Amino acid sequence: MIPPRKDPAAAARGAELASDFTVSLHYDRRMYREDVAGSIAHARMLAQQGIITPADAEKIVGGLRRIEQEIECGSFNWRPDLEDIHMNVEARLFEIVGDVAGKLHTARSRNDQVATDTRLYAKGAAGRAMAAVHDAQAALLDMADAHLATVLPGYTHLQRGQPVLLAHHMLAHFEALERDAGRFQAARRCADVLPLGSGALAGVPYPVDREFVAEELGFSSISRNSMDAVADRDFVLDFVSASAVCMTHLSRLAEELVIWSTEEFAFVRLGESYTSGSSIMPQKRNPDFAELVRARTGRTHGLLTAALATMKGLPLTYNMDLQEVKELLFDAEDILLPSLTAAAGLLRTAEFNTDRMRRAAEESDVLATDVADYLVAKGLPFREAHIIVSQLARRAARSGKRLRDLSLDDYRAASPLFDAGVLDISVDSAIAARDVAGGTAPRRVEAALAEAKARLAAARRDSPSPGPRT
Amino acid sequence: MIPPRKDPAAAARGAELASDFTVSLHYDRRMYREDVAGSIAHARMLAQQGIITPADAEKIVGGLRRIEQEIECGSFNWRPDLEDIHMNVEARLFEIVGDVAGKLHTARSRNDQVATDTRLYAKGAAGRAMAAVHDAQAALLDMADAHLATVLPGYTHLQRGQPVLLAHHMLAHFEALERDAGRFQAARRCADVLPLGSGALAGVPYPVDREFVAEELGFSSISRNSMDAVADRDFVLDFVSASAVCMTHLSRLAEELVIWSTEEFAFVRLGESYTSGSSIMPQKRNPDFAELVRARTGRTHGLLTAALATMKGLPLTYNMDLQEVKELLFDAEDILLPSLTAAAGLLRTAEFNTDRMRRAAEESDVLATDVADYLVAKGLPFREAHIIVSQLARRAARSGKRLRDLSLDDYRAASPLFDAGVLDISVDSAIAARDVAGGTAPRRVEAALAEAKARLAAARRDSPSPGPRT
Amino acid sequence: MIPPRKDPAAAARGAELASDFTVSLHYDRRMYREDVAGSIAHARMLAQQGIITPADAEKIVGGLRRIEQEIECGSFNWRPDLEDIHMNVEARLFEIVGDVAGKLHTARSRNDQVATDTRLYAKGAAGRAMAAVHDAQAALLDMADAHLATVLPGYTHLQRGQPVLLAHHMLAHFEALERDAGRFQAARRCADVLPLGSGALAGVPYPVDREFVAEELGFSSISRNSMDAVADRDFVLDFVSASAVCMTHLSRLAEELVIWSTEEFAFVRLGESYTSGSSIMPQKRNPDFAELVRARTGRTHGLLTAALATMKGLPLTYNMDLQEVKELLFDAEDILLPSLTAAAGLLRTAEFNTDRMRRAAEESDVLATDVADYLVAKGLPFREAHIIVSQLARRAARSGKRLRDLSLDDYRAASPLFDAGVLDISVDSAIAARDVAGGTAPRRVEAALAEAKARLAAARRDSPSPGPRT
Amino acid sequence: MIPPRKDPAAAARGAELASDFTVSLHYDRRMYREDVAGSIAHARMLAQQGIITPADAEKIVGGLRRIEQEIECGSFNWRPDLEDIHMNVEARLFEIVGDVAGKLHTARSRNDQVATDTRLYAKGAAGRAMAAVHDAQAALLDMADAHLATVLPGYTHLQRGQPVLLAHHMLAHFEALERDAGRFQAARRCADVLPLGSGALAGVPYPVDREFVAEELGFSSISRNSMDAVADRDFVLDFVSASAVCMTHLSRLAEELVIWSTEEFAFVRLGESYTSGSSIMPQKRNPDFAELVRARTGRTHGLLTAALATMKGLPLTYNMDLQEVKELLFDAEDILLPSLTAAAGLLRTAEFNTDRMRRAAEESDVLATDVADYLVAKGLPFREAHIIVSQLARRAARSGKRLRDLSLDDYRAASPLFDAGVLDISVDSAIAARDVAGGTAPRRVEAALAEAKARLAAARRDSPSPGPRT
Repeated sequence: MIPPRKDPAAAARGAELASDFTVSLHYDRRMYREDVAGSIAHARMLAQQGIITPADAEKIVGGLRRIEQEIECGSFNWRPDLEDIHMNVEARLFEIVGDVAGKLHTARSRNDQVATDTRLYAKGAAGRAMAAVHDAQAALLDMADAHLATVLPGYTHLQRGQPVLLAHHMLAHFEALERDAGRFQAARRCADVLPLGSGALAGVPYPVDREFVAEELGFSSISRNSMDAVADRDFVLDFVSASAVCMTHLSRLAEELVIWSTEEFAFVRLGESYTSGSSIMPQKRNPDFAELVRARTGRTHGLLTAALATMKGLPLTYNMDLQEVKELLFDAEDILLPSLTAAAGLLRTAEFNTDRMRRAAEESDVLATDVADYLVAKGLPFREAHIIVSQLARRAARSGKRLRDLSLDDYRAASPLFDAGVLDISVDSAIAARDVAGGTAPRRVEAALAEAKARLAAARRDSPSPGPRT
Repeated sequence: MIPPRKDPAAAARGAELASDFTVSLHYDRRMYREDVAGSIAHARMLAQQGIITPADAEKIVGGLRRIEQEIECGSFNWRPDLEDIHMNVEARLFEIVGDVAGKLHTARSRNDQVATDTRLYAKGAAGRAMAAVHDAQAALLDMADAHLATVLPGYTHLQRGQPVLLAHHMLAHFEALERDAGRFQAARRCADVLPLGSGALAGVPYPVDREFVAEELGFSSISRNSMDAVADRDFVLDFVSASAVCMTHLSRLAEELVIWSTEEFAFVRLGESYTSGSSIMPQKRNPDFAELVRARTGRTHGLLTAALATMKGLPLTYNMDLQEVKELLFDAEDILLPSLTAAAGLLRTAEFNTDRMRRAAEESDVLATDVADYLVAKGLPFREAHIIVSQLARRAARSGKRLRDLSLDDYRAASPLFDAGVLDISVDSAIAARDVAGGTAPRRVEAALAEAKARLAAARRDSPSPGPRT
Repeated sequence: MIPPRKDPAAAARGAELASDFTVSLHYDRRMYREDVAGSIAHARMLAQQGIITPADAEKIVGGLRRIEQEIECGSFNWRPDLEDIHMNVEARLFEIVGDVAGKLHTARSRNDQVATDTRLYAKGAAGRAMAAVHDAQAALLDMADAHLATVLPGYTHLQRGQPVLLAHHMLAHFEALERDAGRFQAARRCADVLPLGSGALAGVPYPVDREFVAEELGFSSISRNSMDAVADRDFVLDFVSASAVCMTHLSRLAEELVIWSTEEFAFVRLGESYTSGSSIMPQKRNPDFAELVRARTGRTHGLLTAALATMKGLPLTYNMDLQEVKELLFDAEDILLPSLTAAAGLLRTAEFNTDRMRRAAEESDVLATDVADYLVAKGLPFREAHIIVSQLARRAARSGKRLRDLSLDDYRAASPLFDAGVLDISVDSAIAARDVAGGTAPRRVEAALAEAKARLAAARRDSPSPGPRT
Repeated sequence: MIPPRKDPAAAARGAELASDFTVSLHYDRRMYREDVAGSIAHARMLAQQGIITPADAEKIVGGLRRIEQEIECGSFNWRPDLEDIHMNVEARLFEIVGDVAGKLHTARSRNDQVATDTRLYAKGAAGRAMAAVHDAQAALLDMADAHLATVLPGYTHLQRGQPVLLAHHMLAHFEALERDAGRFQAARRCADVLPLGSGALAGVPYPVDREFVAEELGFSSISRNSMDAVADRDFVLDFVSASAVCMTHLSRLAEELVIWSTEEFAFVRLGESYTSGSSIMPQKRNPDFAELVRARTGRTHGLLTAALATMKGLPLTYNMDLQEVKELLFDAEDILLPSLTAAAGLLRTAEFNTDRMRRAAEESDVLATDVADYLVAKGLPFREAHIIVSQLARRAARSGKRLRDLSLDDYRAASPLFDAGVLDISVDSAIAARDVAGGTAPRRVEAALAEAKARLAAARRDSPSPGPRT
């Protein structure tokens, strides 16, 4: 054995570093409620099973309750040198109840304790995410309600395509968020499994009652394999992944608001509290909130990359790397919830310039498809009709016209199948014609809105009440 | 208007480039079955609704069937200049049935057609993924079956922790894959919605019967909003995300196999067909397959990053960017399926050195927890017991001993609570003591294995039969 | 030892799988020139050092030359069962020259051979990337040249900010690409180190002349540490990272082209060969190329994620994972080069609607800063001036006016410091006033353009001539 | 215009949200020194150019100095409602010097101010990163120095390959870090360009002296294009990218330390302050620091993903999204610096079990290559020699032997070319034989170490002294 090289300065640096490199207290203290609840359930179970005495359990539970109060009223003395929330609670418990505190750690390891706390937290976070998604969905439904008669061009490739109702557009975003709510529900289900009783990795050598603890803590089931229970962080991956997808949806809405609030589009004027002025350009009204929602989407993508990269290639079971994964869960929540609130607020405070939207639909060739469909009704195969109308539109463009500026003669010159009816094609007739399930015809959109309201109400009713965010 | 600058050479380069920059045929031709099936269902519906005549529909369907046969027997003349699978099929249909082919595109846009094909494909891919996950799970169960009596150290931080059964370890990986199967099922459900009838973005102005088409193609429901239907690729994100998580699980198993097959661990000898020699070091047996599974995990993470980055900030509805997302789905499938097969093969052909594993457990201090628990049984709080045993282990280490080398006197010097019973603590007694749900005690592992077999059998029975991979 | 479980079906699947899971030929065959060149240099060195005879070397070199010709004329019989380009070349060499081929592998391992080939390839790819960046820069300069008098609003937050010259805008993109060229040069330098002679990992036990080989192959230096030489793929990370950043720059330009070609902006009409029509909407002109450049940016981000994730946590030295990293290099090149060409083509074929651009600048409040600066010139602190003009702009907006519609009285009502000079503030005066290094004043932009041209010319002159892409 | 829907509760939530959604003060306050320095230089330049009076400049500079002191002594009253560091400093300056403070913002916009501050910070961060890299390199050199005679197996595929000196292994990591230092230097160069004078986006309409400001602040050059100057964050991408690669290098070292400190390898015993015990397993010594370095590598990858995703598709020039990119720079620094320190500390406090390492080399077939090379020396082509030794090794393995256990007769049975010399091949002779530049022969490693020391000393001498980290 060659002894390690001595470099006092480096050693000193190392010692100082050691005092915070492994500290997670600054982020995991937000799990204090989960840690206390987990310990109380564990203590009760130990007493029920005769592993510790009821009197000891009572002391421990009393001490834990007091710790929770101290934390909530701000009098708890946080000690970073104890590194994490678990050691802070444990150390304080010794101060309050004395050596009996040591019995709390019978039949439990830090590994299954941390997994339990984090799963409890993740369940709460998923519940909060669902509630925030529902709020954003409600804002979309309110907008849809207000804009059942607002017409704008629907876009593909950011080119005007066909006219739609703004309500229909809002409902498209509603559907995307609906899937997100489902993802958070799945993430919650993935977290909803009690790992406690798995010990360090192999299970505990005590006659514990895991179902009792699960019931106390509100877990739907207990983990089936102790090694998986302490090695697995899928529930974090699921939450972060759901957040990344949900933020991606918000980024699409945000991008539209940024584009729609340009002077060129001028479809929308964002609420003053959701924009900012410029330090140098007095006339500016910058869509800061929408931009930040968009930007933070990128941040969430990064959290997912980090979570996957961190888990990759870790042998079973617990590795210290898992500590870092926990922080990604918190960061994802901290980005997601305010972004959903911001999106809802952006919508509710936006003024839509409905005249401008309608004009954008009318002063364009968005009716071309309908003209082609008109020829189809006259017996032409769609592909032929498509070619004829394409040529018409191009020819018109060359003389600075749009389809709607053409006369019947112009039309008939292109195809004798045209008759006066073609002149009746309008933005409104085009919208009304999309009278198919999921289409933009007013009666379809109204029905879809009613159905969406019912669905959202049911979802809110059935959702678990999320605990407060620490 | 200033005319564009003319640079003939650049223009020529551009023209050449234009001939392949937008081409997706090389990857989307694998969707030919989906494209043909979607068109047949659409044609039938058009006829049923009286939008085209039954005779026209018959011709179209016949032509499509012939195209499918041509593709399958290799006689189809692929034309990259037509850019994608859809145009290739369409152009060939014109050749076969003439102008009536143009009627197929009534009440349909490329946008809802592509979404339909991709969803059909994604459903198949998810089914294939589930089947491959089930195969890998079966391999794990076979290993568990063979190793119900094999003892090895369970690791945390890659340090020996407590002894476990190899069967228990295998079942831990089984549980991870179980969650993956659930994710692919969710991805399949997300894809299982018919978009056809959404047209370009607003719905179609024809009296189509979307439910009929859904039934024909095996979709469980129809999309609720036409704009969402053509703008949404969540089902791809879900598949790629599920793949990334599943590969991450495989990478953990692969890492273990790499480590276990080192000369230092020597727990396993990988099958010859799953290793390779060295071009220069004749004695080497390199775990190529395990390393490639690990490496391709990183690739899958990259696919997810790409998919999210591509979708971020896209305004509604269809944008060309969505074309690229499709390729990510294919790539994810192409990495995932062989990796699952490789993982199953690696397990089935591995020879586990069970003596070596047991020795690793026995020649270590993995029983320290049990010694501490022994003191707890004598009435000591766990934390105190923990401290006493830590000191014992350290003291022993200083004289080159392990706990199991200590005499009763050594033990009693540390604590008078020790008596002869402490000498009975063994790897086997430690394993047997973890007799808790999810623990490694033999009877628990046997029960868990039986239950896992039943679960897998049920899952395989209930799974949709995946179509073949193109 | 427990023998592996026998499952004939699974074994068969495994055998079949083994035949392609590890195959890299489909992507590494593009390195054939590098592999042949590397071997020729090695053979010559062996002869020069007396390790093999000159006659043997001659035979080997002749065989290798023939192999290269066979590949280039398409007559080479590629054998996927030999897995990679190296084994294909080696096996064919045995066929051509017999057992003497075996001497080529003296003093060389596959590990240092692969590293050498990949570095040679990466150098070429970096050179090609630099050339393609230069081409795109040239297109930007041409556009700048043509638009030295074109005025448009400069945007922040996608809101009109201050008027600028389109030439100035183009030069902004030029600068971004300039940095990219620098990154590719750095990536090239990072690759420009010969690893051959490092053997499997420890160096070779022969009196090789590494400097001779470096000279033959055009490497600037030789690797300093054999273990690092076979374990390191930083040069791939550098190339992929440079690609990701460069594509991100292109995505910003592409996004602008997408937005500018909307009907609402109508600043640009993209070349017909860079847009596509719609299958259902005859009037559409979709900016496909710009969208694909944007989308493929996401793909490149994914390649970087993959490369980093793959390298993370690999112990020294060579691991099979490195094989996968090579493919990421190829993919990055395959996305980057056409995207740069597409960007150049998009610019060269675009028609800018200069009237519309100027009108957008004039019909807005982009002169507000200048009005504030006018007050500053009269002695007001900027912050006060800023507040006054903000209020003016708002008040004007409430009566549907812009600043330029205000009368002198309106101005003087806001501040007595205004006099008639304020009415002279115009888009052109505002542009001319930014007469500072890097500013948009015409004389500054002209100078910047001239300087940029000179810089590009020098860069092209000094660039290594990139070999052709395989 | 349809007025926005009123929902008082939502509005209240929105108002509350607005108070922190856009706040960046919690992370950008660390740039206070840069903000103050930038403003002082700007004020001085304004006075020098006669844009403000010397007296005003003096007041402003005095106020800024006082603000810096207030911040450093902790008496500054931070106001989150002012959102960022810039507004906090500006508001306090008004309090201290009155309205003259408003003149500081003449000829400057928040856009070029933020870019300037961030670049100054990035330069400092790159300098600190270089210094920390150098420290970690020094630790590697110290280890190399101590282990010039320590032999261990070099690994490929984590299989023992050929014997090497531990010093050689350490120098491999040294080379990787050397490239990292180069990347941080490049990132520093990229940041080393003054944007001030670019105004909001178009340049400023004042006769500023940008070169003077650059000199004052220590920038090497000024930006060439005002639009690029405010839109560009490449220097952040470069820093984050360099961090991601550097952390990836550290993760490889960390992984080795984790593997080497297993009981199975037992090559190293990590310093007590760099490991932790277990809450339940008293005997454990967990390599926490090494695991955290590995885990945080994933985090850094995520930061890069986030940075790229955030920049993708942003039109010129400044967008609010850029605010978020700044935080990624800080996060990257906060992960990188302690990780480098941790890595250095891990090395310096590690005890290498040199006996065990040598035994691992001796009790294996790592000499097989040398036996093959022995045959080559006797005239056999390498490929044939390779086959003979492979078969020898396998045959030996079947009777539980290694190559070194074989007798001369065993050897001669395989090939008559063997003679007694083959028995002299040893781990030491094999190491000595790699006497090539970059090889592991002792004299080469000694020379490489001396050269590395000289290089590091030169690099440290030439490095910019990094400012302290806030």
